[in-house]
Formats: sequence, structure tokens, C-alpha cells
Amino acid sequence: MKFFSDLADFSVAEIKELITLATRLNNKPEPRALEGKILSLLFLSPSLRTLISFQSAMARLGGGTFVVSPEMSIHGLESRSGIIMDGTAAEHIREAVPVIASYGDAIGIRAAAKSENLNDDLIDREFHELTSLIETPYINMESAINHPCQSLADWKTLDDLNITTNNKFVLSWTWHPHPLPFAVPAATLHMAALRGMDITVLRPEGYALPNSIMKKANHAASINGGSVTETDKLDVAMNDCNIIYASSWASADHYGNSSAEDEVRPALRQWCIDEHWFNKASDDCRFMHCLPVRRGVAVTDRILDGPRSVVIAEAKNRMLVQMALLHKMLSSS
Amino acid sequence: MKFFSDLADFSVAEIKELITLATRLNNKPEPRALEGKILSLLFLSPSLRTLISFQSAMARLGGGTFVVSPEMSIHGLESRSGIIMDGTAAEHIREAVPVIASYGDAIGIRAAAKSENLNDDLIDREFHELTSLIETPYINMESAINHPCQSLADWKTLDDLNITTNNKFVLSWTWHPHPLPFAVPAATLHMAALRGMDITVLRPEGYALPNSIMKKANHAASINGGSVTETDKLDVAMNDCNIIYASSWASADHYGNSSAEDEVRPALRQWCIDEHWFNKASDDCRFMHCLPVRRGVAVTDRILDGPRSVVIAEAKNRMLVQMALLHKMLSSS
Amino acid sequence: MKFFSDLADFSVAEIKELITLATRLNNKPEPRALEGKILSLLFLSPSLRTLISFQSAMARLGGGTFVVSPEMSIHGLESRSGIIMDGTAAEHIREAVPVIASYGDAIGIRAAAKSENLNDDLIDREFHELTSLIETPYINMESAINHPCQSLADWKTLDDLNITTNNKFVLSWTWHPHPLPFAVPAATLHMAALRGMDITVLRPEGYALPNSIMKKANHAASINGGSVTETDKLDVAMNDCNIIYASSWASADHYGNSSAEDEVRPALRQWCIDEHWFNKASDDCRFMHCLPVRRGVAVTDRILDGPRSVVIAEAKNRMLVQMALLHKMLSSS
Repeated sequence: MKFFSDLADFSVAEIKELITLATRLNNKPEPRALEGKILSLLFLSPSLRTLISFQSAMARLGGGTFVVSPEMSIHGLESRSGIIMDGTAAEHIREAVPVIASYGDAIGIRAAAKSENLNDDLIDREFHELTSLIETPYINMESAINHPCQSLADWKTLDDLNITTNNKFVLSWTWHPHPLPFAVPAATLHMAALRGMDITVLRPEGYALPNSIMKKANHAASINGGSVTETDKLDVAMNDCNIIYASSWASADHYGNSSAEDEVRPALRQWCIDEHWFNKASDDCRFMHCLPVRRGVAVTDRILDGPRSVVIAEAKNRMLVQMALLHKMLSSS
Repeated sequence: MKFFSDLADFSVAEIKELITLATRLNNKPEPRALEGKILSLLFLSPSLRTLISFQSAMARLGGGTFVVSPEMSIHGLESRSGIIMDGTAAEHIREAVPVIASYGDAIGIRAAAKSENLNDDLIDREFHELTSLIETPYINMESAINHPCQSLADWKTLDDLNITTNNKFVLSWTWHPHPLPFAVPAATLHMAALRGMDITVLRPEGYALPNSIMKKANHAASINGGSVTETDKLDVAMNDCNIIYASSWASADHYGNSSAEDEVRPALRQWCIDEHWFNKASDDCRFMHCLPVRRGVAVTDRILDGPRSVVIAEAKNRMLVQMALLHKMLSSS
Repeated sequence: MKFFSDLADFSVAEIKELITLATRLNNKPEPRALEGKILSLLFLSPSLRTLISFQSAMARLGGGTFVVSPEMSIHGLESRSGIIMDGTAAEHIREAVPVIASYGDAIGIRAAAKSENLNDDLIDREFHELTSLIETPYINMESAINHPCQSLADWKTLDDLNITTNNKFVLSWTWHPHPLPFAVPAATLHMAALRGMDITVLRPEGYALPNSIMKKANHAASINGGSVTETDKLDVAMNDCNIIYASSWASADHYGNSSAEDEVRPALRQWCIDEHWFNKASDDCRFMHCLPVRRGVAVTDRILDGPRSVVIAEAKNRMLVQMALLHKMLSSS
């Protein structure tokens, strides 16, 4: 495996093989599988779970990591082309990225959405620019439009819950004080579609996901025997629902213009998931979220602290599926 | 061993066993003892020695660590219950702590005193709240009222110096520009009491240690054949003294009100340990301190740079006893 | 090997042995050579390449590292003697440095030039003060006047390019918005002299390197059959040149007085290496730089992105030669 950048690059069989490997490595540790191997971790945006789950995953297999993060004195990395660098930034990504990559056997890169230009983010322009600079295998640790490690972990969580094809999956928008990127909802929608689930995207008016995201999900659903619909009606969406996956995202209508969106968003405070949302859902309907989650904003304490929530299990699975990914990518055996 | 939170949870025999193991691991390294094992390190307050001595201890045994520290972009962790998180903090400890713990085989937690509410700190409320959220073994890396790793290291340092039961131990308050927590003096006093030493707490008027701290020390002393007294008289305290352990702490009378204490504290500048303090002490009386220490404030350069000081040895012992602790907690053999 | 502080402390045969070892370890990994061994990394000034190349080098050999960096909450380390520490700084280097060193089997120290007092920096006063406090083996990760790890990497890069004795080497000053330390130019000049190359220092008037730097280089050149000359004439310097090594440094005339130098420096903006610099050079003349490099300031994009540049290879060699260094210093076999 030379890169792990998008679940769409793999067959369902290959994804299932990774999940099986994750389970095997959890049950039967291989603490020397990656001895002498190094994973570079480059964060151009902040992280908690991704950072420490990759550090732990690599160390459990006997390998090492090093971290380049935005908190470090990296002098402000310049990324524009043809610039005369006589300002603050002392280093250009054209040098920094290949050098950082060259110290590892593979590199994980996080470059979350800049949320300035919708089209740039939808085509993942920055991530592709960064990976064009490197020759080692690479892993997408969240880009403008994707978060395949989260989706792989969520796939395992759904398996652990015995969720099957044609179970009903709701991806629900929730309130958040700020507009957020499309990476998690886009990746989650596509992952559920690849599983062949019957998916409803529940979101307020003005928060439809961009066409390219819906089109990719519809394509995956049609191949795998599932479906994707959209609604702004809570009752319609939640009827017989088995899984509700909460996320928040920007309005495409106001992308890059958060002050314009600030006028719309406060009216949507009632989009906070609570027990009454589950009235018509399946009895054992579970609540998923990629974390971090804002209590009392996206979801109430009683849901997070109750039996529906599997958010801690999802996070734990991040480490386990990443162990499988790293084993597959770097193990010589 | 499922947790290491307070020396009081262990018998003297168990403590001595850990010291013996520390010495053995130093003499005969076991660089694969903890291969594939991970220690999570969660710092809610700053650290130098604790951070790097745990990183080194774990790596010397072949295990790995990852660090979550206050300098990281952890968005400000929220810890209040029932809060609507629409402010700066994007994550609650109820999610963050179990997730961080789940990536390790054990977790070390530092949550130094908030120094706002005396009773909360005396009962170690925050530390207990944090550990109630996790299922893995845990280590207290300094809480509001305890610092058992420091005390374990100091125990070894006293052994290395051939200090015995009934040798005379002075815990002395020293000047410091700010009020400091009770964690180190409380842990140190209890540790010396467990050793059955004859202890004098030397401190100015208004700086008596709170009752619960004195009571716990008296209990340990009475069981182990030692004694605890208090005085504000330098000559009385230092007479025949074998060990002076310097520390500084807040006045319980002004706890959480540092501006009130600011009116009292400056008059105590002469509480800076110097050679004349040792006039009536044992010739080989040693100076101990947990570090960091302010030169010319808590103690003079001549003491720190002279033969009485064992502060570097104490710090080195942090790593060695923590190796023993981790070996005991995580080694399968 | 008890220390690696200056290439001048080693014979050319010993340097070549390290280069050979670097190549061997790259071709035939030894992932357990340093198991259970720890390298302390103390940065008193910022770093990217040095930090991560040492972390990776040590991990590839099965050892561990920990990092103390200026971004950490180390309370501001005090370094002055005889000071009463009642200000911000809570710890003195006289305690911190021995403690940090004591947790490792060796320590790497970076203490870049303070650029206040020319003589202090030329004699590397701070670095010698720091190393006088420790008993473990140590490595200079860049001091006021030296950067031997960079020079060792550059030695290997020159070998990889088949550059031989008496090939022509130009050390060229380039423009930079701020005055920089002498560490890299001094170390580079001495390294090329040790190789017996014919060296020209190309720099504008007012930017001659201090006498002690030139004298050390001349001594090395005379022993090894090379030569060192200086000029401010581009055509003279670049004639038949095989290697141009770009660097920037302060004017010794204005050392520690950057506002005075600000009046001179802007007129030197044309000292930005571009293709026309190579008109009279050897066809395959290569461009070297230690990084970070400011594009459009020190060198144009077309040079950095073209076939002359070997800057990424130099950086990669940092890791490889440091593996050799650590193996030599810490391996018991």
C-alpha cells in the first residue's frame, strides 16, 4: 500500500481485510512488527485523537514516530509559489515537506480545510499539493474533504455493533457555534454508502451537502445496494433509524464568509440531539460522533452519558485500524 | 498494581520492594520488558522532570509513551458538569480523558492544585474526578495534595544516603515569591513518617500545615515508631538534624487569595536556607528539594553547589523508581 | 566517543569512518543496536531538521529520545550566576541541565548564538558553560560558532557527489532580512578545508568572516593540501566552481547591533543566487544550503527547483550521519 488517502481507492474486500487485521493485532500483539520503521507525523492543523492514536499505534508495533505540529517553532511555513520570502516565514513547504518525509518510511499529513475557497476544498487542492512533494507512502490524517482514518474506524465500530447492509443510517447536521469543514460528513456519508446502507442526510434548509459529495456517495451506494436521500424533517429521517451519526458543517451558500453565515446559524440552536429525536427510531439506535463534541450544543449530556453513545469506542478504534493500516503499509512480512 | 496514587495505599514492605526493583533495573537493564506497552501521559499542569523522567523510564524498558500537555492545541478542555459548550472549549474531559486513557496500557495524570478552594484540594477532588473516568491502571504524577512519585524517589535517596529510622528529618518552609500547593510538603511529610523518622516541621507563624495533612502524618509516624512536631524556631528544629527538606507552601489562612497573602509573605524573605542554618545540625546533614528551586530565594548558591545538596540525585531517582513502578504495573512476567 | 562538539577534534580518518558507518547503517539497518538507550535532546533555540532527524536516527537504531524545547513550560531557565531568582524564571540551568542529562545515556544540546557579544560567541562561551555541567557524552546540535552535525552531513553529501580534494568550493554570503550567526559558515568553511578543497569565501565588503574563523580554516587547509581565499568579486569566485554553498551571516562590524546593520544590509539584496552566477562555473556545479532557505531572497526558485540543488539530499544525510554518530557513541558492541 503506497497511500491511504480516500476509502474510494480501495475495494470493500480490501477494507474488510484491514478491519480483520485490526482485530487480529488487538488480540495478538506484534510488538516487533515495525521495529526500526519510522512514521513522520505532519500536522498543519491541530489534533488530539489523531496525534496520539498514531503515536500509540506505531509504538505498539515497535516502530517510532516524530511530530511536526503547528505549535512548534517552524517559523511559519510558506506555501505560496513564486514568493519572495522576506517576511516572517523562513521556510517553504517545497523544502520542508520533502525533508520531513525523508526522515520516515511513511508520512501522515493533516491539512484541514482552509475554508476560504469552496472549490479548492472540494477538490482537496492543498492535500494534493503536499503529497506531490513526497516520495514515501502517505496517509491522509484529515484533509479539506476527507478523513479516511475516521471512516475506517467507524466501519469497525459499525461491525462491532453488528450493523448490516440496509440498516438505516442517518447523518445528521447539528448546531455548532462556528461553520466547520465538510471532511467528516463527506467521508462518513461515503463510508456508509460503501457499506450499502440506507442513508438519510438530515439537515436544515441551506445546509445541503455540495453536489460533488452527494454524487460520490450516490455512486458508492448504487454499486453496493444502498441508497442516499436528503431531508430537513426529523421524523422522516429518524423513522426506524439504527445509527445516527452527528456532525456539523458549513453552509455551502456562505462558504468562506462566516460573518454572513453568523446571521443564519443562531436560529438553528434546536439542532441539538436529545432523547425525543429517537421516538420513532429503532430501540437500540446508537449515537456516533467523531469527537471532539460540544455538550449541550450538538448533543445533550443524557445521550452522551447514556447507552446509545459509542463515541469512546469509535475513538479507540482509531488506534486499532491505524495499527492495521501501518502494518499493511510498512511491514516487510 | 492497578493504581499508584498515594504511598498510604502500600505497605512499607511493598515500598521497599519497589526500591529494590529500581536498583535491580538500574544495575541490570531490561530493555524489552515492556515492549509493545504504552503509557499515556496527561498533563493538565506544566512539568519538566516528571515529563522527561517518565518518557525515559518507559523507553528504557522498551515501551512507548505519548504526551498530552497544556501547550497542545487541545482547545481548552471543559471540566464543568451540565455546561452548554458554546464558548471556547471544544472538548469535555468526560470524552477526552477516557479516550486518552484508552490508547495506553496505563495513564499518568498530573493535575496540580487549582489553589482556589482549600477543601477541594485537601480531598484531591479533581484527581478523583479524573480517575473516575478511566478504566486502565493510573499513576498520580502530582495532584492537588499528593506527589507519590517524588516521595518514592526521595525514599530511595534517603536509602542511598543510609538514613535510618529515628534519624532526624526537618521539613522546612522556605520563602518563595508566590503561594505554592501543599502536594510536595504533604507527600514528603507522610513519606518521612512512614519511614519512622523523627520529624520537625519548621515554618513561620501562619504557615502551619492543615490538620488533615498533619493527622495523616501523625498516624503513619505512630505506626512506624516515629514522631511529628512543629515549630517556628530554627535552632530547635535543626538541632542534630540529619536531613533538611526544603519546600514552600501557601498559608492556609489565605488559601485562594494570593493578594491577601502578598501582604504577609514579603516579611519572610529571611527564610532562605544558608550555611548558618546548619550550626547545630549533624555534620553530614544533607539538603533535599524536589526542584525546581529558586536560587537565592529558597536556598543559597553555596548550599546548592556544596556537598550538602543531593537535589540532582533525587531527580535522577525519579526515573529509577518510576521504572520500577512501570515494571510492576505493566510487565506481564 | 565521549563528545561530538567540533570536527576539529577528529582526524580525517575518523570522519571517514563515520561516513562509512552511516552508509552501512542505511544499507543494513540495525533496529536493535541501541535498545534501552536514551538520547536527551535539549533545545535552547528553535529547530526543525535537527529535532526530527535526531528523533528518527535514534528510533531507527531502537533507542529512545525525549525533548526539552523552548516551547515547553520550562518557566524560563535562568543562566546568570549569583542571581536572586525572585522573578519569572523558576529554575536555573545549574539544576536543569544536569537533571536533563541524567535521564539520558547521551545528550544533544542546541544553544544558538545569542548574537550579543562577538567574543563570547567566537569562543562558544555558552556551549562550554552548558557542557561543563554534565557528565554524560554530549553532541553539539548547533552552538554559537559550530554546527558539526551539519558539516558531517555535508561531508557525506560531497562524497555522494564524488567531489574530491582540490575541487573548487565557494562559500557565498547571500542576502537575508536579518543578521544571522556564524555557526554554519564557520563550520562549513572548516569542513571544506579539512577535505583539502580550494575554497573561496565570496562576500560583500563589510562581511569578512572574523579572524579566528579564517585562521582555523587556513590551518586545516594547509594540513590537508587545500587553500582558502576571500573576495567580493562574483566572477573571480565562481570561475570553475564545483560547489557553491550559500549562507548568510552578520557583519562583524555591527555584531549585536542589528539596527546599525539594517542601514547596510538592504543594499545587498542582489546577493540572491541565480543561474547567471554559474556562467563561468563547472557545468555540473551544485548548490548547497543547510536549510531553512528563503526563496527569492538567498536563491531563486529556478536554482532550488533545478538540477543544481542538493539541499534535500543534505538534509536526508543529517539523519544518516547522526545514526552513525549515535551508534559510535552509544553502542556497546
